[in-house]
Amino acid sequence: MLDLAIIGGGPAGLTAGLYATRGGLKDVIMFEKGMPGGQITLSSEIENYPGVEEVKTGMELMESWPRQCMRFGLVHKMEEVSRISQNSDKSFKVHTTGGKEYDAHSVLVCTGGRPKKAGFKGEDEFFGRGVSTCATCDGFFYKGKEVVVLGGGDTALEEALYLANICTKVYLVHRRDKFRASPATVERVKRSDKIEIILDSVVEEVKGDAGGVTAVVVARRDGEEKREISVPGIFTFVGYDVNNQVLFQESGEPLCALNEFGEVIVDLNMNTSVEGLFAAGDLRINAPKQVVCAAGDGATAAIGVISYCEKVKDH
Amino acid sequence: MLDLAIIGGGPAGLTAGLYATRGGLKDVIMFEKGMPGGQITLSSEIENYPGVEEVKTGMELMESWPRQCMRFGLVHKMEEVSRISQNSDKSFKVHTTGGKEYDAHSVLVCTGGRPKKAGFKGEDEFFGRGVSTCATCDGFFYKGKEVVVLGGGDTALEEALYLANICTKVYLVHRRDKFRASPATVERVKRSDKIEIILDSVVEEVKGDAGGVTAVVVARRDGEEKREISVPGIFTFVGYDVNNQVLFQESGEPLCALNEFGEVIVDLNMNTSVEGLFAAGDLRINAPKQVVCAAGDGATAAIGVISYCEKVKDH
Repeated sequence: MLDLAIIGGGPAGLTAGLYATRGGLKDVIMFEKGMPGGQITLSSEIENYPGVEEVKTGMELMESWPRQCMRFGLVHKMEEVSRISQNSDKSFKVHTTGGKEYDAHSVLVCTGGRPKKAGFKGEDEFFGRGVSTCATCDGFFYKGKEVVVLGGGDTALEEALYLANICTKVYLVHRRDKFRASPATVERVKRSDKIEIILDSVVEEVKGDAGGVTAVVVARRDGEEKREISVPGIFTFVGYDVNNQVLFQESGEPLCALNEFGEVIVDLNMNTSVEGLFAAGDLRINAPKQVVCAAGDGATAAIGVISYCEKVKDH
Repeated sequence: MLDLAIIGGGPAGLTAGLYATRGGLKDVIMFEKGMPGGQITLSSEIENYPGVEEVKTGMELMESWPRQCMRFGLVHKMEEVSRISQNSDKSFKVHTTGGKEYDAHSVLVCTGGRPKKAGFKGEDEFFGRGVSTCATCDGFFYKGKEVVVLGGGDTALEEALYLANICTKVYLVHRRDKFRASPATVERVKRSDKIEIILDSVVEEVKGDAGGVTAVVVARRDGEEKREISVPGIFTFVGYDVNNQVLFQESGEPLCALNEFGEVIVDLNMNTSVEGLFAAGDLRINAPKQVVCAAGDGATAAIGVISYCEKVKDH
């Protein structure tokens, strides 16, 4: 019986593993089918992780984490988890796609999430080199420049407003004739003299060169007009997939409470609605989706796990 | 009118300043009467800040933070804040002990807290060299060794249980004949075969040498017995002072809701009960009191501040 099974090897999972093993838990496994490090390893530039002064790639930033976090006994299993279920004695069972099962007193789910692809030409080629899905992360790199934002929901409009504080101009492209965002946010976007709204339009393509994106081709959906906007960056906000699949039971119900977006509902201690089951990082509600926040979540969750394990193992 | 006034220059304040200015806020002042870095700079060893692999002193860990966090326009004022009040237009006023006043659209309070001193001989001399106030931080340094824990409340007993997972033995010293902690926690402590309970007793002195603490002198309060316990460490949990003074108004009421311990009540976004007033780090409820958690709080709060400022400045 494991003390703790950590599902996911990004900043939250690694930090939780560090804190849990350093805090005296003996059997802690982090399940991550690939190399640990998480989604941030896809990022080409990060300069806002406090304590790391140099601008690094995500891969460089995370390079030392597995070494540091596994120093106290955390074990990494390169197995993919298919599902977490709860045993009748309130412990948990981790099921892997390879057909293995592991029992654990507690489970921390930190499987993150992933922004949806918009599907235009050049999106993958220029990802991290002008195509971004995070204004908080990358907006500053476009200070004093113009950018395109793609999307029509709350996130897209809020991020457009965020970027309008930094950039000289934001072209906000949305495929429909009205926004899905809340009326107050739409009003603020309309009042901004830095945001040009382009409705009924799609991004067909991003063009670029070795230095990254140079232009975005925007087309009206009625085929009436095509426009090439010279910008070094495009931010896409067309949806977000929460990696919550491991929580779904054979009945189709999730193991713990989720919100309408599928994010795990947690309190300030990263407790979910099920005792002994914790969540941290990008898959929880209100996640700021920043490395330092996910790491903080992981530490917080581990402290709770240690206390929980003391209680259940004492019975 | 400032966009944001940050009160306190520890990991939370510095990270918030980084995120706020990098996110486009123009006028952001961090009020910290001393050098930035926070309470962690008093720590002699830290090895659990993820991404910093080497064991460093707290001072070394924080050395680069002010440079990194002030790179985007954050201004540090070496002024002491006496009070924060709210103006009739819902903006805030920061009052300094020097008699100055600053108006700000939003305020982030991250003034931290401080463990109370127990008052025994050698406490200050050996602080950070065998005398600790944080088991999560320092417990691991006593793996396989014996330690003393001083205190009788929930924190003391929970930390004693935490240390019992790591250390070979924990001497739990309490001045009264019973513990103030919750009955369930007391029961778990009593059941632990690693914890020796020493009631009606006080710590008179810690003894040590150049390498740190070597022994703790424990005396019964009735004067009947004095005992020198050979240990390399003592953890004291005799209370905690939350640095919430700046929130108290001339009426004696706090500006926002606090819990029974004086900690600021926040939600997952670090909002307090007053819109535009945020709190982060050790002075908030449920604070894990770890550098990475405080930094995560700061980033979270700054993202909320940016969004708040967009709204209020738009009116």
